[in-house]
Amino acid sequence: MKNGIAFRTIGEEFDGFLLIKESTRGTTSNGKPFLTLILRDASGEIEAKLWDATKDDEETLIPEQIIQVSGEINQFRGKHQLKILSIRLTQPMDNVQVTDFLGKAPMEKEELAEKLTEAIFEMENPKIQRLVRAFIKKYQEELLTYPAATKNHHEFASGLAYHVVSMLAIGKELHKLYPEINKDLLYAGIILHDIGKIKELSGVVSTTYTLEGKMLGHIPMMVEEIGLMANELQIEGEEVLILKHLVLSHHGKAEWGSPTPPLVREAELLHLIDLIDAKMNMLGRALEKVQPGEFTERLFAMDNRAFYKPNFEENEG
Amino acid sequence: MKNGIAFRTIGEEFDGFLLIKESTRGTTSNGKPFLTLILRDASGEIEAKLWDATKDDEETLIPEQIIQVSGEINQFRGKHQLKILSIRLTQPMDNVQVTDFLGKAPMEKEELAEKLTEAIFEMENPKIQRLVRAFIKKYQEELLTYPAATKNHHEFASGLAYHVVSMLAIGKELHKLYPEINKDLLYAGIILHDIGKIKELSGVVSTTYTLEGKMLGHIPMMVEEIGLMANELQIEGEEVLILKHLVLSHHGKAEWGSPTPPLVREAELLHLIDLIDAKMNMLGRALEKVQPGEFTERLFAMDNRAFYKPNFEENEG
Amino acid sequence: MKNGIAFRTIGEEFDGFLLIKESTRGTTSNGKPFLTLILRDASGEIEAKLWDATKDDEETLIPEQIIQVSGEINQFRGKHQLKILSIRLTQPMDNVQVTDFLGKAPMEKEELAEKLTEAIFEMENPKIQRLVRAFIKKYQEELLTYPAATKNHHEFASGLAYHVVSMLAIGKELHKLYPEINKDLLYAGIILHDIGKIKELSGVVSTTYTLEGKMLGHIPMMVEEIGLMANELQIEGEEVLILKHLVLSHHGKAEWGSPTPPLVREAELLHLIDLIDAKMNMLGRALEKVQPGEFTERLFAMDNRAFYKPNFEENEG
Amino acid sequence: MKNGIAFRTIGEEFDGFLLIKESTRGTTSNGKPFLTLILRDASGEIEAKLWDATKDDEETLIPEQIIQVSGEINQFRGKHQLKILSIRLTQPMDNVQVTDFLGKAPMEKEELAEKLTEAIFEMENPKIQRLVRAFIKKYQEELLTYPAATKNHHEFASGLAYHVVSMLAIGKELHKLYPEINKDLLYAGIILHDIGKIKELSGVVSTTYTLEGKMLGHIPMMVEEIGLMANELQIEGEEVLILKHLVLSHHGKAEWGSPTPPLVREAELLHLIDLIDAKMNMLGRALEKVQPGEFTERLFAMDNRAFYKPNFEENEG
Amino acid sequence: MKNGIAFRTIGEEFDGFLLIKESTRGTTSNGKPFLTLILRDASGEIEAKLWDATKDDEETLIPEQIIQVSGEINQFRGKHQLKILSIRLTQPMDNVQVTDFLGKAPMEKEELAEKLTEAIFEMENPKIQRLVRAFIKKYQEELLTYPAATKNHHEFASGLAYHVVSMLAIGKELHKLYPEINKDLLYAGIILHDIGKIKELSGVVSTTYTLEGKMLGHIPMMVEEIGLMANELQIEGEEVLILKHLVLSHHGKAEWGSPTPPLVREAELLHLIDLIDAKMNMLGRALEKVQPGEFTERLFAMDNRAFYKPNFEENEG
Amino acid sequence: MKNGIAFRTIGEEFDGFLLIKESTRGTTSNGKPFLTLILRDASGEIEAKLWDATKDDEETLIPEQIIQVSGEINQFRGKHQLKILSIRLTQPMDNVQVTDFLGKAPMEKEELAEKLTEAIFEMENPKIQRLVRAFIKKYQEELLTYPAATKNHHEFASGLAYHVVSMLAIGKELHKLYPEINKDLLYAGIILHDIGKIKELSGVVSTTYTLEGKMLGHIPMMVEEIGLMANELQIEGEEVLILKHLVLSHHGKAEWGSPTPPLVREAELLHLIDLIDAKMNMLGRALEKVQPGEFTERLFAMDNRAFYKPNFEENEG
Repeated sequence: MKNGIAFRTIGEEFDGFLLIKESTRGTTSNGKPFLTLILRDASGEIEAKLWDATKDDEETLIPEQIIQVSGEINQFRGKHQLKILSIRLTQPMDNVQVTDFLGKAPMEKEELAEKLTEAIFEMENPKIQRLVRAFIKKYQEELLTYPAATKNHHEFASGLAYHVVSMLAIGKELHKLYPEINKDLLYAGIILHDIGKIKELSGVVSTTYTLEGKMLGHIPMMVEEIGLMANELQIEGEEVLILKHLVLSHHGKAEWGSPTPPLVREAELLHLIDLIDAKMNMLGRALEKVQPGEFTERLFAMDNRAFYKPNFEENEG
Repeated sequence: MKNGIAFRTIGEEFDGFLLIKESTRGTTSNGKPFLTLILRDASGEIEAKLWDATKDDEETLIPEQIIQVSGEINQFRGKHQLKILSIRLTQPMDNVQVTDFLGKAPMEKEELAEKLTEAIFEMENPKIQRLVRAFIKKYQEELLTYPAATKNHHEFASGLAYHVVSMLAIGKELHKLYPEINKDLLYAGIILHDIGKIKELSGVVSTTYTLEGKMLGHIPMMVEEIGLMANELQIEGEEVLILKHLVLSHHGKAEWGSPTPPLVREAELLHLIDLIDAKMNMLGRALEKVQPGEFTERLFAMDNRAFYKPNFEENEG
Repeated sequence: MKNGIAFRTIGEEFDGFLLIKESTRGTTSNGKPFLTLILRDASGEIEAKLWDATKDDEETLIPEQIIQVSGEINQFRGKHQLKILSIRLTQPMDNVQVTDFLGKAPMEKEELAEKLTEAIFEMENPKIQRLVRAFIKKYQEELLTYPAATKNHHEFASGLAYHVVSMLAIGKELHKLYPEINKDLLYAGIILHDIGKIKELSGVVSTTYTLEGKMLGHIPMMVEEIGLMANELQIEGEEVLILKHLVLSHHGKAEWGSPTPPLVREAELLHLIDLIDAKMNMLGRALEKVQPGEFTERLFAMDNRAFYKPNFEENEG
Repeated sequence: MKNGIAFRTIGEEFDGFLLIKESTRGTTSNGKPFLTLILRDASGEIEAKLWDATKDDEETLIPEQIIQVSGEINQFRGKHQLKILSIRLTQPMDNVQVTDFLGKAPMEKEELAEKLTEAIFEMENPKIQRLVRAFIKKYQEELLTYPAATKNHHEFASGLAYHVVSMLAIGKELHKLYPEINKDLLYAGIILHDIGKIKELSGVVSTTYTLEGKMLGHIPMMVEEIGLMANELQIEGEEVLILKHLVLSHHGKAEWGSPTPPLVREAELLHLIDLIDAKMNMLGRALEKVQPGEFTERLFAMDNRAFYKPNFEENEG
Repeated sequence: MKNGIAFRTIGEEFDGFLLIKESTRGTTSNGKPFLTLILRDASGEIEAKLWDATKDDEETLIPEQIIQVSGEINQFRGKHQLKILSIRLTQPMDNVQVTDFLGKAPMEKEELAEKLTEAIFEMENPKIQRLVRAFIKKYQEELLTYPAATKNHHEFASGLAYHVVSMLAIGKELHKLYPEINKDLLYAGIILHDIGKIKELSGVVSTTYTLEGKMLGHIPMMVEEIGLMANELQIEGEEVLILKHLVLSHHGKAEWGSPTPPLVREAELLHLIDLIDAKMNMLGRALEKVQPGEFTERLFAMDNRAFYKPNFEENEG
Repeated sequence: MKNGIAFRTIGEEFDGFLLIKESTRGTTSNGKPFLTLILRDASGEIEAKLWDATKDDEETLIPEQIIQVSGEINQFRGKHQLKILSIRLTQPMDNVQVTDFLGKAPMEKEELAEKLTEAIFEMENPKIQRLVRAFIKKYQEELLTYPAATKNHHEFASGLAYHVVSMLAIGKELHKLYPEINKDLLYAGIILHDIGKIKELSGVVSTTYTLEGKMLGHIPMMVEEIGLMANELQIEGEEVLILKHLVLSHHGKAEWGSPTPPLVREAELLHLIDLIDAKMNMLGRALEKVQPGEFTERLFAMDNRAFYKPNFEENEG
């Protein structure tokens, strides 16, 4: 992945396959049409300009198509840009497929599925266990393929499951340190907290927000789903209410999308574990692209900060 | 009602029946026990102190009991306080009942029910109509007896229905002025927006928040209920989604409890109509208690403002 | 109006008359001069580029000129843009005039004037009535021609009067629902609240802020005007003070330009009615331009939200 | 003044004359009436309790009365309190008067008046000069006797003029350092900025807010006054507008009561000079009451900070 | 500890030894002196009132004295209060000492010291290791006895070291999950981040803020200390700068006391681990005092939330 | 200076020497390379475009080079832009040097140094005096050449010393008006407050932030420096602590970079004097470039306000 499009340097030439993520028509200041393409491979994405685009180009160079492209990496307003020299659509014999161009979690689906199963297996409260198991079953396919967001963090295939599995690992250790934590509740909260994203987001490729996602958001949608599922499984009791509360409050504050703040110990912890894993993932991906002694680009989702990679890391790693 | 406890002036004597809303034990600076009672009749409430309270007093003078009390209206830290001279529990022959002491909407239940039915009758979209009708049926009893809040506005019997009926009247007129408004959607939003309070609040007398109310809040609870009801009635389509959105967004902003802000014209209007009716109700009750040329007490739910009643109103009304 | 410039779709050709609202000189990346024009008709406005502009173009294509133009609707950064193919200034025989190209209220001046007169006629307090009548008389011409703002809401000819008349209609209905409202005060507040804009804004065509408008703002300017007018008419008493207060507080909060918040019932209501009419006007104009199932462009003055037009509206309207 | 009531220490006995600023009736926890008095002399104020107050006490011990009182300084909730042992109203032969008990500026009225005259004399722009002179003349008496606020800063007789004169001295020096400042404008802004307080506040003794003050505030009131005065003197031109702007913007931000922020150099400077003089006055009075090595009480108007008086000051002063 | 003063219920009698934390003189509404004492044992603290206090009481019942007291647990304004029936100072033969009455970390000093040593032992970067070791040595005694705060979290003997050791345990696990983290940096940040509190706080008993603590705060004080220590040890290089940055930024935001926000991965993580351990400690202590189905008291340092202890925990634990 | 680059008007031709401040490579929409240069002289800076830039241009036209350039002043997005017609690097015989192109304080270094010496001479407290003198000596060279910031205010050679000297002049006058101010402390605070910028900024030409500056900021860096210097000089006592506090708190609020707010009278005043001088400097430079009757460009560091230069100034000045 280190020779992917996200790791190329300015001035370098590029010749290879890329996936079209977005395509927009523009007009130059001389009135000539051009296309702005967002191209990607598993390492990340780059903007590209196709000058003197034909009608045919406009109609064929569309999202989710794979292209063979050659060009040069330039810089434009502080960001990389690919200047296209030649471009063509792939043909069957090119033997490439969309999934090759998506980022992907550093763990295979089977392993992710296994980790989820283990967590459920550890639960002792039968109501919580049954409810969580039913959700895993219902959304098995999507849970293992969806990203956790359209951008910012875990925005790759299986990102959702990988985020959950990483959080479970943190939760497991914190339970050892703070044994008074109710492990069933924390594990259940971790597994369920973002499942609403499966309905909020359109899918794995060219991910956008669904109408339902825009109008309600994944948090109230998931609270409702828990109610429906509990109804269906005829599970009653405070467990259902508290699980809804964990999902509802996991953004921590009203301004951040949780109309009720965490009011149960495990809800507070769920919020903090979510923060840690999301931030470490964002930072990891940004720092990977810079050298010791450099700053990353500004990270919008981290209050627009640019992070520094210390020089002395070089000599140690 | 104008001779109710809320309208008595300082120095005046009081002799009559009152309902105990709250009762708390305290100790004077000399170490002697006393009771702080919140007493009410239909006009409002007053704090009272019972000095040298006995064990027996503590056990019998409890919430929801009606007492016969005589005393004098004093002032304490800028608020009225009843100094109790004598007190006794009511007996059957006193012929008083709890409901006599609750504030109550200025419209009878029958009329309120009729107004709701009319609104449903005017609807043209069959999905919206069926869904709303089902809710009215399910919660008929509570809808017609519950207050709209524990304090601040419409905190009286039938307050919830009266709030809805007032908002429908405003909605009807605004629909005439802005005919592009979808009346079905607006009416449905008005009727459904606060039904979650039936589960959020404990009841009509000594109203408090339920555990469910504290952990989730009436807004996400009602979004879930709409989903369950639509499931049950096998209603599908964008109408269900938009109705959920109206309920979800009716507080207007994330900070005020709506994780999604209004994104549909009728949702924005629902929020504004809700504001108008709540504020006019609060102001009406506060201004009723002061004379022209005076300011009301500070109204916490209106940014702690004290409102002025102009002098020239006197000569006109 | 539905075939006006604001309703054209991308790719469509345009051939007709438009008014120049703004004109700015630029230089292409090749160093050649061009003009960026904001062109408008009664339906709205569009940006246009004139490439290879001559000195003569720069001097003649200036604000408030009407041009005959043909070109094609393109898209640039998500907004419509007119690519000009030919352009010429109008000649007398074209028989077009500036006012044809301004948006205009959906009510004639006569009707607007009549509505204002009716409202004054209904007033009972002679001081309030005389004061309001004097203002209507003083600013009759401007009140009936000015927009209510440079953009956002009611930004068309007679927009100010139309905004006032719509608010009076809402006020009338709310007075029926809340009869304790002082109608004279509310009507007077509605009529006077934005008259300061006549001095704050430069006029009807190419509206900008005056120096006085920038240095003081319409609210303090109108408070002063009420003082001067009362002086002139020798009207004294609390009515004058309360009317000043209504104007001063009608933006609701210090952060929004009202150094004193509403402290009188009618002041609070005036603020809310103003919000409703401004928002319904903005939403109406934005939603008119999209199809069911689509979102409007982001509306800056409504917290940058994009509003959704439900699909089911299609089958009903 | 250093032996005034504000400088007495806990445990000390007091025997002397004090002015009643406020008087409120209360009831002890045993049901007995008492009076809470706010008493003052020129050094500051103290709360006092009169136990077992009679009807007669209530009727005679009222604001603006001078009393002869003996008692002891106690502490209550971290503040000084005077425990009254004996109290009586003054008699003519006591030869004391209300003004003896008010704090007062450290400069005589004559000197203050002279300083104002000097500043006007230095002005070169005849319009500004005439306008300011007219105000000084109109409000001469009040300007020289009013406090600048009900509390916080310059809350003593002649406080308003003293505040203005101190600011003029700062303005004079800053004009030397930044000669590009328009001195006429700055001086005029300083003299006029708080004159609206003469209408906002009720007077010198037991100062409260007038109805006009509450409904409008001193800033919009003064903007209006400038307009009326300019009208009367038939002064026209940008000078009048800019003077109104200086007054309107002198609180610096909308949240602090200036609907328009400073947009002219002298307006910005006026705001900063006002801050300096108000803060130095507050700090001076608070630090005067503590010893080196101690903190002052928390100062509400300075973000509730307690200020420290360094120990090494002792050895220098 | 479960029979300590913090676990007693209302109405219960108490007879035993307690430590005086604070003592304040007051006067009852009848003018009689009394003492308000804050008394504590290792389980927590309680307010107590001693009525009719003598001069002698005032002089002997002072902070850091141990008393033998009997009384009854009452409630006052929603908080427990001890009504004192008899009280006496302890005598040598009572065989009690101050440290018996302080809360204390659930780990012995030796074990804490060992954990710190282990962490230093694991470090690979010699500069970081030497610097941290020097601090541990310099502040060994205080680090192992100081609380981490005057209230809110880890406000007990050895609280500082216990907080550090808990954070190290979390850091160790997170390093396993995110191996790209620089462990040396994270461990060093954890150990050093709060050492400034040793100078900010006065000590272990009756902990208050020092003058230096109030004027500078522990964060800038510790940044300075790192500079001094590096100077002394003649350590140079980016390591010193980054360690200062970790300490400086560990409160996360300027509003929370970090003038620079975290700009290095380990700084961000340090902030989050600090949050987790502080919050889990606060929640643990608050939830320990309530039964399943109850809410804790409002926790000021957690946005004033009251937390709920679910009912179903009862059956599991 | 009035014929410097910052004072040229649109359409005017320019022919002269300029210093390159920044240089960035771009690609036109036709794919051709160009350079965006920021060029400056002592009056200010201007953006320039060099079309069809060669490899050689890229390598030679770099920051800190002086060029001879001819071109025309254009406007681009509301800002001036220089269209380059010819450009060449300077040669030795051109006889120009970098310092000719930097803005510079309106006072010579010798005079600045003398003013600092005078202030130190006036001090009476020997500890404060010695400490300040040591800093002046240590940083003599940088203090007299550094700017006070990279932009916004005093961003010219000797800007730091000039800012300090101006503030001393204000401080001197305020000390006369408020004689209770500790002059030594105030003078010392003024001289030391921004010395940390010498380490925060990279130098006089093409000033940027150092790594240390980004990671710590000038405030904590200077607090540390004071500690080190006091150590070295073996100065002890509260003076050192209070001086650190003055530096630490001089931005006034946590949000503005001062983790502790001013808690000493002279600290509060230092903050206000700093505000006045920074703002008067910014305003002075912005107003100098506009004519009476015009507004300045928006000033980012002054809440993005555009300031007005009154018309009547014309006739007076």
